[in-house]
Amino acid sequence: MVPSDSKIQFDHQGRLRHFLTINGLPKETLVQILDTAESFISFGQREIRKVPLLRGKTVVNLFFEPSTRTRTTFEIAAKRLSADVINLSAARMSTSKGESILDTARTLEAMHTDLFVVRDSASGASHLIASHLPEHVRVINAGDGRHAHPTQAMLDMFTIRREKGGFEGLKVAIIGDVLHSRVARSQIHALSTLGVDEIRLIGPRTLIPTEVEAMGVNVTSNMAEGLSGIDVVMMLRLQRERMDGQLVPSEQEYFNRYGLTDDKLSYANPDAIVMHPGPINRGLEIASSVADGDRSVILSQVTNGIAVRMSIMAKLMGGQEDP
Amino acid sequence: MVPSDSKIQFDHQGRLRHFLTINGLPKETLVQILDTAESFISFGQREIRKVPLLRGKTVVNLFFEPSTRTRTTFEIAAKRLSADVINLSAARMSTSKGESILDTARTLEAMHTDLFVVRDSASGASHLIASHLPEHVRVINAGDGRHAHPTQAMLDMFTIRREKGGFEGLKVAIIGDVLHSRVARSQIHALSTLGVDEIRLIGPRTLIPTEVEAMGVNVTSNMAEGLSGIDVVMMLRLQRERMDGQLVPSEQEYFNRYGLTDDKLSYANPDAIVMHPGPINRGLEIASSVADGDRSVILSQVTNGIAVRMSIMAKLMGGQEDP
Amino acid sequence: MVPSDSKIQFDHQGRLRHFLTINGLPKETLVQILDTAESFISFGQREIRKVPLLRGKTVVNLFFEPSTRTRTTFEIAAKRLSADVINLSAARMSTSKGESILDTARTLEAMHTDLFVVRDSASGASHLIASHLPEHVRVINAGDGRHAHPTQAMLDMFTIRREKGGFEGLKVAIIGDVLHSRVARSQIHALSTLGVDEIRLIGPRTLIPTEVEAMGVNVTSNMAEGLSGIDVVMMLRLQRERMDGQLVPSEQEYFNRYGLTDDKLSYANPDAIVMHPGPINRGLEIASSVADGDRSVILSQVTNGIAVRMSIMAKLMGGQEDP
Repeated sequence: MVPSDSKIQFDHQGRLRHFLTINGLPKETLVQILDTAESFISFGQREIRKVPLLRGKTVVNLFFEPSTRTRTTFEIAAKRLSADVINLSAARMSTSKGESILDTARTLEAMHTDLFVVRDSASGASHLIASHLPEHVRVINAGDGRHAHPTQAMLDMFTIRREKGGFEGLKVAIIGDVLHSRVARSQIHALSTLGVDEIRLIGPRTLIPTEVEAMGVNVTSNMAEGLSGIDVVMMLRLQRERMDGQLVPSEQEYFNRYGLTDDKLSYANPDAIVMHPGPINRGLEIASSVADGDRSVILSQVTNGIAVRMSIMAKLMGGQEDP
Repeated sequence: MVPSDSKIQFDHQGRLRHFLTINGLPKETLVQILDTAESFISFGQREIRKVPLLRGKTVVNLFFEPSTRTRTTFEIAAKRLSADVINLSAARMSTSKGESILDTARTLEAMHTDLFVVRDSASGASHLIASHLPEHVRVINAGDGRHAHPTQAMLDMFTIRREKGGFEGLKVAIIGDVLHSRVARSQIHALSTLGVDEIRLIGPRTLIPTEVEAMGVNVTSNMAEGLSGIDVVMMLRLQRERMDGQLVPSEQEYFNRYGLTDDKLSYANPDAIVMHPGPINRGLEIASSVADGDRSVILSQVTNGIAVRMSIMAKLMGGQEDP
Repeated sequence: MVPSDSKIQFDHQGRLRHFLTINGLPKETLVQILDTAESFISFGQREIRKVPLLRGKTVVNLFFEPSTRTRTTFEIAAKRLSADVINLSAARMSTSKGESILDTARTLEAMHTDLFVVRDSASGASHLIASHLPEHVRVINAGDGRHAHPTQAMLDMFTIRREKGGFEGLKVAIIGDVLHSRVARSQIHALSTLGVDEIRLIGPRTLIPTEVEAMGVNVTSNMAEGLSGIDVVMMLRLQRERMDGQLVPSEQEYFNRYGLTDDKLSYANPDAIVMHPGPINRGLEIASSVADGDRSVILSQVTNGIAVRMSIMAKLMGGQEDP
């Protein structure tokens, strides 16, 4: 089971040390992260994009599960903060020599590295490292099993706030494979904390876990009903390996029922935005015309992801002033 | 088919935006690149080799086909210009998650990356990216299928100019597997544009495509005849995987007929130079005594490759002043 | 056979050019390296950890045998000296295109790279490169076959000196698979040169090569006898692939006889320290209670490894002032 890790995220003075899960973080912490990210957004358009905030610091991308895309966003964010970045495909490291995750992390910490960005296919890997390494080390969860992907959720929140001006009164739909999605769990926590009006989960019953209904969301498997009155449509990525006929019918049937097309999108509010954490499966969970259409903010999410990750890194490493 | 991509290489003010093919580039553009490279050559011998021309810029090495050597030259060139470099073995990225080349490139662009260095086993990949990404992005073709490898050809031109003082009156032989060579195509365009006296292709008839004769070159399969009066000998790499007996006889027979030995080199002019894009197959297309001999400029080509790639990157990213 | 490479390590003015083996290095050279490393240790704790000693220089990690951990320590050390670092998993490079080690190194040198960090499963690879490349190139042996791993031995010496104040009068035990260990060979040379009182090798007779007894060490296969009066316990890593029953009995039996437990450690002096080059095999050559216990300096070794590698790089690249 996944530990309740909200407490470990703060030091004894109440400052954010790690970023492992959104579950349990106060609203003001989330808002601070979004506010700081705002200052890094304009920054991305400047001629020179370096700030020396993390100069001389070493960021380790410790990816036990491969993800070139997510790793690249953290690498770019860290380099724009002037950090040195070490990329470790830890899968190879651990399997070839049989070292445990903790021994690997302890060894890297002994090299005076400062910040670990951890991805693992098992839930709790970043929590394990955060709870066993010395005080001064910082850990960011870049996705662990089905548990959490909090930086993804934060960039989604940032994108919503930029597009919609805030969270109050918003109706948000999360569509697809909630069961296997760490992204969805983190999104639900963030949306709840930031105070949207309603969260609806839409997908086949086999892909909506019963426990989430306890999180104060509404659930439906009907797209027309679910999208009605929605301001923000958050698509989830469907793993093709789920397509074995057990949980999901054929690709074609899934697309017919749950794939986001212009037709289905018309049930939502006229100014609804469409989001997706990427990479998208065109013609599976989303039609190309929607993904590339004028209501899609998918590429803005990517851009925002750099600013939000810079903000989180800066907060963990240097945010001594704010409580 | 490979598109005619000379126009897309320029912006509406006639400045070079991309470097995809030499076909169609005016002579003055090539000469400017060679001239700027000259300033970076002495630079390589300095104590400190960094210039801040690309500071704060992000260069993405997007290699859909692996090539450690070529990727390294671009990485070194970019770092000497003070850019941040992201290396993506995109093969893994795209195959493991099924994302298209364009989605990958668009996602990377959304991270505010500035310059893509693209290699692909398919012709036209860099052209595809250049024609679909926003204005401000720059693309360099680092080799696409059998189509073009223009930075290799430019470093070859730079090496010839340094060794021979210019192009006028030169007779140049290109030897080997022209059929499968993107290098040869780019070399022929560059040599023609820069105005050498004669280009001769030498190789087995099965490896010389008929269409190239239309490019104003002479073709022979006789080394003695082909090398007679030659000033510059440009060897091509023979892919061992072609050695299946269909297009090429045995390795031994190929070496006997077309492998460059001291004996065969004696047909060329006494001060002829020997070039090869590397990595060399010793004893297959070239004898070790020639590769390591005093007429070989193979390692100079490598050195020049850094300067020429710095020159091209600097021109694309900052060459606003020259038309 | 492994060449005697102590001479090639110096230039004609007697300055250290390469770091290939400790065998044949004078005591004063080793002491200088340890002294300089001392200055880099405090450095690791500073807020900003960069010095510009190698700014504009390019360090190539040329690893023909994979080792994420060792490669990372060199990468961090080089980056803290402000060098640019190129990581090459040369295995892939050479196997996929059939280029020789020397051609690879010569090509990289032609790109004006400055320092090669070489690891290979064959003995002598770094020596081969050092003896064939131009004068100005520097080479560090990061482990070659069973021959040497001199930077590991130097960080071990540094750790001993920090913990014990010096080498005089010390009794040191090296325990485990000496036969296959490049680490042990380098440790024995370093300990002898620095003048410890006694070196004892402890392990199964099948894993202690007869030739080492000529190196002035004592050999035993009895842990109680071997550990008696010992100040420094240096464990070796046991490769699980040796566990085929030929050289070593079962894992359990090996642990029972030679695995370092608290019980066995009690034979050593009460203030004896425990070292291990990592990664450790818990429950095979060492018990977790010892590895994590208060006499273990295993993580200090890792920390010291960065400082020692910075020291060696700085000495090779810039040590023009000291003879």
